Amino acid sequence: MHDLSGKRVLIVATNGFEQSELEVPRDLLKEKGATVHVASLDGAKITGWDKKDWGREVPVDTSVKDIKADDYDAIVLPGGQINPDLLRVEATVIDLIKAFDTQKKVIAAICHGPWLLIEAGLVKGRNATSYKSIKTDMINAGAHWADKEVVTDQGIITSRNPGDLEAFSNKIAEEILEGRHERRQAAE
Amino acid sequence: MHDLSGKRVLIVATNGFEQSELEVPRDLLKEKGATVHVASLDGAKITGWDKKDWGREVPVDTSVKDIKADDYDAIVLPGGQINPDLLRVEATVIDLIKAFDTQKKVIAAICHGPWLLIEAGLVKGRNATSYKSIKTDMINAGAHWADKEVVTDQGIITSRNPGDLEAFSNKIAEEILEGRHERRQAAE
Repeated sequence: MHDLSGKRVLIVATNGFEQSELEVPRDLLKEKGATVHVASLDGAKITGWDKKDWGREVPVDTSVKDIKADDYDAIVLPGGQINPDLLRVEATVIDLIKAFDTQKKVIAAICHGPWLLIEAGLVKGRNATSYKSIKTDMINAGAHWADKEVVTDQGIITSRNPGDLEAFSNKIAEEILEGRHERRQAAE
Repeated sequence: MHDLSGKRVLIVATNGFEQSELEVPRDLLKEKGATVHVASLDGAKITGWDKKDWGREVPVDTSVKDIKADDYDAIVLPGGQINPDLLRVEATVIDLIKAFDTQKKVIAAICHGPWLLIEAGLVKGRNATSYKSIKTDMINAGAHWADKEVVTDQGIITSRNPGDLEAFSNKIAEEILEGRHERRQAAE
């Protein structure tokens, strides 16, 4: 069991995030002792997408524009078809992800969330996975793509779909405790 | 005014297509005299997405698996965040688009529809446009991307968003009447 007491995790999402891909990491990381904040574009609550239709609202703690990467140990990017497509055109979001990268903080993206890693230029030459529908976009962006439940490369963690959420969340905890590696890690 | 009498156009979509991006080309091309068929994955009617929520059902004429490219002069691929993401993992759809390409039929995709062109391998080295959120995916796939209402390259037509639908539909009509060019066309 990882003890994340004193560690701080930021989840960034907007409407249309895949319901479980925000809620499960949020709850599992809180259970391990982390402080977890959810940020939306304007700080207002957001509504998820639950498999084939709109899902539930989730509370939001803060706004992307009020966030500094300095204040967190990790950023988590849920998927959904709608959520990352809306976020990838927002410069504040992409700049925030780049700031987490510059500061060697843990970055984790699941399902369609890795589109945001493509947009932030973090995929080239990296081991990664994603939802199957964006595999071609990941490979075209330069990823070494693998069909595995979780792939970690220098503290950048990717998973495929909601079925991978437990492995994804555990890997986030592990990487926060290890700190991001400077060396290239093999896909695991 | 283009006279499309005797010409046959296929629109391929599934649930979550952007409402206007199916309906406007369908209606404008019919007005010009074309026979226009809508194909879904299983031949059942499909429901659109109207800007920020589910939209209306549209009637469907046929199923993708019952289609032959031989029977049509052009294929039209509407966008939406959900529709092309669902279609790009369907081999029958991607193979159908490739068959239109092999037979030098007109291929037209708007908004997020060009994701399907990426999946079919038709973007590399081509002049093209798309919805702004997938610009990076298009460029990573090798497109010469331009922010123009309609871009045509060897009979492959792309547009950015619903605001371009009239220019998009007119260009489809024009290209059907011209036939696909073998030479590389400049972006126009």
